Amino acid sequence: MLITDLIERKKQGEHLSSEEINFFIKGYVDGAIPDYQAAALLMAIWFKGMDYHETTDLTLAMAHSGDVIDLSEIPGLKVDKHSTGGVSDGTTLIVAPLVAACGGKVAKMSGRGLGHTGGTLDKLESIPGFSVNIGMKKFIEIVSETGLSLIGQDKELVPADKKLYALRDVTGTVDNISLIASSVMSKKIASGSNAIVLDIKTGNGAFMKKIGDSVKLAEVMVEIGKLAGRKTVGIVTDMNQPLGFSVGNALEVREAIEVLQGKHESHLKKVAFTLAARMLMISDICATESEAFEKLEDALVSGKALFKLAKMIEMQNGNPDVVSDISLLPQAAKKIGVKSDKKGYIAGIETKNVGIAAMMLGAGREKKDDTIDPAVGIWLAKRHGDYVNAGDELALFYVNETKNLEDAISVFKSAYKIGDKEPDELPLIYTVIEE
Amino acid sequence: MLITDLIERKKQGEHLSSEEINFFIKGYVDGAIPDYQAAALLMAIWFKGMDYHETTDLTLAMAHSGDVIDLSEIPGLKVDKHSTGGVSDGTTLIVAPLVAACGGKVAKMSGRGLGHTGGTLDKLESIPGFSVNIGMKKFIEIVSETGLSLIGQDKELVPADKKLYALRDVTGTVDNISLIASSVMSKKIASGSNAIVLDIKTGNGAFMKKIGDSVKLAEVMVEIGKLAGRKTVGIVTDMNQPLGFSVGNALEVREAIEVLQGKHESHLKKVAFTLAARMLMISDICATESEAFEKLEDALVSGKALFKLAKMIEMQNGNPDVVSDISLLPQAAKKIGVKSDKKGYIAGIETKNVGIAAMMLGAGREKKDDTIDPAVGIWLAKRHGDYVNAGDELALFYVNETKNLEDAISVFKSAYKIGDKEPDELPLIYTVIEE
Repeated sequence: MLITDLIERKKQGEHLSSEEINFFIKGYVDGAIPDYQAAALLMAIWFKGMDYHETTDLTLAMAHSGDVIDLSEIPGLKVDKHSTGGVSDGTTLIVAPLVAACGGKVAKMSGRGLGHTGGTLDKLESIPGFSVNIGMKKFIEIVSETGLSLIGQDKELVPADKKLYALRDVTGTVDNISLIASSVMSKKIASGSNAIVLDIKTGNGAFMKKIGDSVKLAEVMVEIGKLAGRKTVGIVTDMNQPLGFSVGNALEVREAIEVLQGKHESHLKKVAFTLAARMLMISDICATESEAFEKLEDALVSGKALFKLAKMIEMQNGNPDVVSDISLLPQAAKKIGVKSDKKGYIAGIETKNVGIAAMMLGAGREKKDDTIDPAVGIWLAKRHGDYVNAGDELALFYVNETKNLEDAISVFKSAYKIGDKEPDELPLIYTVIEE
Repeated sequence: MLITDLIERKKQGEHLSSEEINFFIKGYVDGAIPDYQAAALLMAIWFKGMDYHETTDLTLAMAHSGDVIDLSEIPGLKVDKHSTGGVSDGTTLIVAPLVAACGGKVAKMSGRGLGHTGGTLDKLESIPGFSVNIGMKKFIEIVSETGLSLIGQDKELVPADKKLYALRDVTGTVDNISLIASSVMSKKIASGSNAIVLDIKTGNGAFMKKIGDSVKLAEVMVEIGKLAGRKTVGIVTDMNQPLGFSVGNALEVREAIEVLQGKHESHLKKVAFTLAARMLMISDICATESEAFEKLEDALVSGKALFKLAKMIEMQNGNPDVVSDISLLPQAAKKIGVKSDKKGYIAGIETKNVGIAAMMLGAGREKKDDTIDPAVGIWLAKRHGDYVNAGDELALFYVNETKNLEDAISVFKSAYKIGDKEPDELPLIYTVIEE
């Protein structure tokens, strides 16, 4: 088999076989196929696309390019949840304890934040003592015992995706549905869960800006999951404003705890419940969404979910008392109110810029090796559609280092479009894609 | 300027500016832009194409990536001729002396053969003593004095094309009209002539198999020439059978000498005259083709053209007596008649395989560093449309080394399609593309 033939055939719009795709991934990972030939093939794929079978073959080839986690020691169906990334998207911290409290098993590997989007690992690490590097044995032990554990991705997981993504990033081949879908799904499949709920964010704070693209991505990922033998559901949710009120690591942990304490009837809670309900349904714990919602509400009201969170924190060396005393979380030195300059309705929020403003305060990373400050961030006072008077507080900034403060405030305020007309309400859950 | 932006823009079908194309070529040659980004851009170009301006910008950027030959010391208009390559295509050896005999100036850099196609340098080197590496000073001196010199390409000419072609060869991006045209034209422009006649071969022995593609290539190259300020004419000629009777280096020199001696009224002579006439016309020596044909016929009949060839051979350290005594050329040990197995009309010749058969005898190279035997090759006895009886000689094989002989005969014979019906005559000159 020759890589030049594969390039030629894909260029002509032909279908690549499983053997050919395996040959490509294996050769690329072991160095037999150089970057320039992989780049040419990726660009041909960008133009000609891949069908569901090719995309699934690519996903499986990548998933098996390194270690594949074996969760079979944990009894029952293991369910994973993945978000394509957004601003104030702390659902994992709410969903995992809820599902565990209802009898589900969540053995989840999470990632770190980059640019305007946050990462679950960074949020968890704002909990004093919490460790995301506990090793596979302990991970399996904790899930078996408590029903949930959240850890970092092992180095040897899906090396093909790491290498290929780095190449795509510099060759204009990131924005292809098949390549995006296979990148996400290869990691999910290698992570070992039997069932996967995908939260595909859509809007100005998401990777996919257009609803059509987001639905298409959801469809492709659900189809890959199906062809790869995993129960998969995709939910397309809104990212045209920050999902919760908080942007920043300790702040998002605080908000998640407060949701689990029953303090917020918010968008964040609604999306978390929608995701958690689907996780219970594909885990065969609940038959319908309404049954799942009821069970989840009970887990919340009874405190069971909060207890699950505390238990996981404890078993991962963190201080479980944070779930009842949020003052134990890292605190910023200053709180600064950011006020509206004019009156009117909040008609639009450039969500990405809210994430960037928080990043500028130190809550996120511009580059992969930047360090973050867990205490800092933004707590929003107003959301899409709210009416404000000039001088009303739009948000509270939690600040330690002030060198970027003025710029961060300016970026934040410019993200708000304030108009005379009350805007239409934004949809929250667009659609659910099932097998 | 970022190469990733160029890739992205070309991917979206946008036009790249002169500055962007210069940035790409400069960066690629000096190593700032890695192969994988160049490969991605080339594949995007393959899909989205380049317009005439982009193609000319690419050509000029490549032409100026290394040394550019300055022929201004040679008085008058210098005219170049280029063939896209074929089998038994010895026109340069006929055209250059003819044009020089009519007062034109031919300062030409030629190439070597590869695969089924021959190269002028290899043919010239079959002349005892002839040197193709005489240095630029001597080259200019010879052209000034005799009107013609044929030498090898200097190492530092068009390094961008060398590097880019090597990459295209392994990334499925050879077969794009803009990339092919800019590769050829960059070398022609760097070679310093003011006017260029292009012989675009079309058919089963040519790089371009389809007449439509060949005409398109001719049009693009002529347009580049025009935009780059060179007088350029493209002539699309047939390569559905070997152009002359001989395939092999000394044999092709012999045939060229015999044409100049007035011994053949052949396709080879007709194509050579057509090219030479255009060279005289764009050199402002003749106004019309008929005037040029008359002048060329006179140069041939009077022996002036043959004398020019002898003069050049002498000045490049070769034995000029070959022009009157072809037995001074290298001789093969054996001549073997290859006979037809059946009777009928020659209805088709798989031209590429005739070239490959000659290569197998040692006349050509399979790989770039293979050595060749100047004496060996094939002299055809029959051409397209001829009638043969079983046992009639199709060709005479000139052989030294016999290890591949049986295979070469078999490849050669399989190239001939012999049928009951007299086939249509093949066109010879398809079209002439002028500015």
